[in-house]
Amino acid sequence: MSSAGKASSAPRIETLRVKTSRRTEWVNITAEVNRRIAASGVSTGTCQLYVPHTTAGITINEGYDPDVARDMEAAFDRLVPRDAGYKHSEGNSDSHIKATMTGCSQSVWIEDGRLRLGRWQAIFFCEFDGPRSREVHLKILPDPAI
Amino acid sequence: MSSAGKASSAPRIETLRVKTSRRTEWVNITAEVNRRIAASGVSTGTCQLYVPHTTAGITINEGYDPDVARDMEAAFDRLVPRDAGYKHSEGNSDSHIKATMTGCSQSVWIEDGRLRLGRWQAIFFCEFDGPRSREVHLKILPDPAI
Amino acid sequence: MSSAGKASSAPRIETLRVKTSRRTEWVNITAEVNRRIAASGVSTGTCQLYVPHTTAGITINEGYDPDVARDMEAAFDRLVPRDAGYKHSEGNSDSHIKATMTGCSQSVWIEDGRLRLGRWQAIFFCEFDGPRSREVHLKILPDPAI
Repeated sequence: MSSAGKASSAPRIETLRVKTSRRTEWVNITAEVNRRIAASGVSTGTCQLYVPHTTAGITINEGYDPDVARDMEAAFDRLVPRDAGYKHSEGNSDSHIKATMTGCSQSVWIEDGRLRLGRWQAIFFCEFDGPRSREVHLKILPDPAI
Repeated sequence: MSSAGKASSAPRIETLRVKTSRRTEWVNITAEVNRRIAASGVSTGTCQLYVPHTTAGITINEGYDPDVARDMEAAFDRLVPRDAGYKHSEGNSDSHIKATMTGCSQSVWIEDGRLRLGRWQAIFFCEFDGPRSREVHLKILPDPAI
Repeated sequence: MSSAGKASSAPRIETLRVKTSRRTEWVNITAEVNRRIAASGVSTGTCQLYVPHTTAGITINEGYDPDVARDMEAAFDRLVPRDAGYKHSEGNSDSHIKATMTGCSQSVWIEDGRLRLGRWQAIFFCEFDGPRSREVHLKILPDPAI
């Protein structure tokens, strides 16, 4: 593995830690991802984000009014009820279903050393079976200078 | 920024404008994306599409029978009702939830200078809080010739 | 097209065949994808997966307990009923909607010549209008050695 901060080295995978405190909880991780990009020294490229869990996901949505994330948490819990005669014995089938509905990866371009998000966009880690200690992996790929 | 039409330059971001006329409206943007790819001169690679909004998404689905898009618009409106005791005061929490359910990005390979879509597939911009003037960003990445 | 097993050649698209036997059926394709990666000789990079259909999708979720996939199949069928006054005359509008809810592509990193999935994660082809003969395309991209 190459060390951080060398823009000229091959891309490598970094890991963010996310600690959740509720069963369904969306956590805004945008600032931390931007810190990692700044540390990488990559100015233009793509940041790939990957959640290695099966009862959590990742999405991009409004980060300005925290009520939006709360409304989305409630909407997912309403759409996929916790108890619905599931077969899986661990009691978290609803969490698996919600994870598939959001997806486990996102890809955002980097411009001027920062995420090129829309004005109101933020990246949310979506916990659906917390509280837990979770991970989000990220890979920073500079654009080819062809 | 490099100018259009030079396949040998670094990848750059282009912007499509989409004007919607209904609150929920899926717009087929396939032809316009193919025009941009043709103009780029890239023959083999990947076209990344990104929606910078939080109440609109992007998806790939059937473009042959327009009734399919109408059915999907209605299904999303049924799944996530407009009024459901949301906290967010702007009255468009349902639009945010639908945007997360479709996602804000897609990635499609380019072959012979065109999108390599399946036979019935088309790319749809998914408006969930129109009518509005919207943007879709795209980045055209040639395959590395390793 | 270059032949398989040459890590030093340009990336190319391969096709997996998937045969489904039920209308809604999630098929774990992880082992076959890992075989293709091994054959490619690529040690570190990204495996992009693409479903060219409009009534099937692809997702990443738990592959350890098969009950999880069964629960997710049932949940999607419950969320989007087969009959709901759809316009599209082929009687599979629900399948199109489910395909958009899972999405038609996934991207997973390669490390040490294998998919870098989370401990419980597997890749599922999601049939929503079977039984059918289906395809999943994959493109294996080595990391740039910058």
